[in-house]
Amino acid sequence: MSSLPDPSQPRITAGTHVPEMMAMIKELAAYENALDQVQATEQSLVRTLTLAGSHGHTNPGYAKTLILRLPVKPNHPDDKPEAAAAMALYFYNYSTWRSKPGIYLEDLFVRPAYRQRGYGRMLLQELAREVVRIDGGRLEWSCLKDNTPSLDFYRSLGAKEMENWVQLRVDGRQLERLALGKTEALQTGARNEHTGQVLEVKDRPGEDTRWISGSY
Amino acid sequence: MSSLPDPSQPRITAGTHVPEMMAMIKELAAYENALDQVQATEQSLVRTLTLAGSHGHTNPGYAKTLILRLPVKPNHPDDKPEAAAAMALYFYNYSTWRSKPGIYLEDLFVRPAYRQRGYGRMLLQELAREVVRIDGGRLEWSCLKDNTPSLDFYRSLGAKEMENWVQLRVDGRQLERLALGKTEALQTGARNEHTGQVLEVKDRPGEDTRWISGSY
Repeated sequence: MSSLPDPSQPRITAGTHVPEMMAMIKELAAYENALDQVQATEQSLVRTLTLAGSHGHTNPGYAKTLILRLPVKPNHPDDKPEAAAAMALYFYNYSTWRSKPGIYLEDLFVRPAYRQRGYGRMLLQELAREVVRIDGGRLEWSCLKDNTPSLDFYRSLGAKEMENWVQLRVDGRQLERLALGKTEALQTGARNEHTGQVLEVKDRPGEDTRWISGSY
Repeated sequence: MSSLPDPSQPRITAGTHVPEMMAMIKELAAYENALDQVQATEQSLVRTLTLAGSHGHTNPGYAKTLILRLPVKPNHPDDKPEAAAAMALYFYNYSTWRSKPGIYLEDLFVRPAYRQRGYGRMLLQELAREVVRIDGGRLEWSCLKDNTPSLDFYRSLGAKEMENWVQLRVDGRQLERLALGKTEALQTGARNEHTGQVLEVKDRPGEDTRWISGSY
């Protein structure tokens, strides 16, 4: 009997119900006054997430979710049994030197009505357990630098800040330009062509991308 | 004929040859005076990487590699035809609001003899093309903050620095402690137990982790 879930405790399971995830993603964005930035739809989530139990479809998925549900027998008077209270969205990352996977926590959201109950740390603990389970090395996530209360909390969980590193990102128009070889650095070769100088495609590829092999 | 690879150009293909990768990982570590930090072995790479062409094994793999090979007909007198000159190791990440995958470049290495030829940017361009191919949104990587020459180069490729964010990491002993619920924050509940105060396990889980569901 001791292995049965305790009905008075919340439960954490892999996400299966997309409308529920979509609702929480929108709530988090609204909370951050950024609802207009949410391009996700239920369809795009189905297409891109690894959904528990969906063995039939061919999509391997790029990220997974954990959902924390209220207890079957709630302790709080207004709690609806088994309602989704919090969500974590994560993917596996990798450390080359250790040649071990890890987990990167992309989003953690606790619905406002259920905060101050430790649900966020329960999800972080479950992710740490998943890292151990896959013989991984690290649990990582990012935080705004001026979010002092969160940083204090994360430090209390044993997290250290990677303060000597900065993350770089290429997206939008710049990503297209890089993919097409149209960035400043990549255009050096093309500019040389226009000025009549010798074009060393192998050294400074311009518009000509024939050196790319599509063999994978 | 125009679709055949140009024998005078380098080629980029998905990594298949593990001893070659292992050699380059060690060379990169030696270059950074950190050879003692390399725990990777050929066996651990086989276990954890997605290797092109290895459809038979059950490991989905946590990261992929691209290898840049010298031309079949090299232009440089000392170049050995088709030798591995550079490597990129990457994995897929995810943007929730866009519900799109992206690529995170974990390691980029160009063998010293083949630097200043644009091979690094060729690999970055190929990764940008891969992001576009998977209908992804971002290409990302990290750089030491004081590595000014690299940052200048990355900016010239269209990368922007995520300077308001700091990455957090839990690993080693701290990861074990978090997984077991033994961190400072998680132990609050247990401490209350010892002092005779009411233990709200649902709010501040201590050593008792029965609320974790193992249903995935």
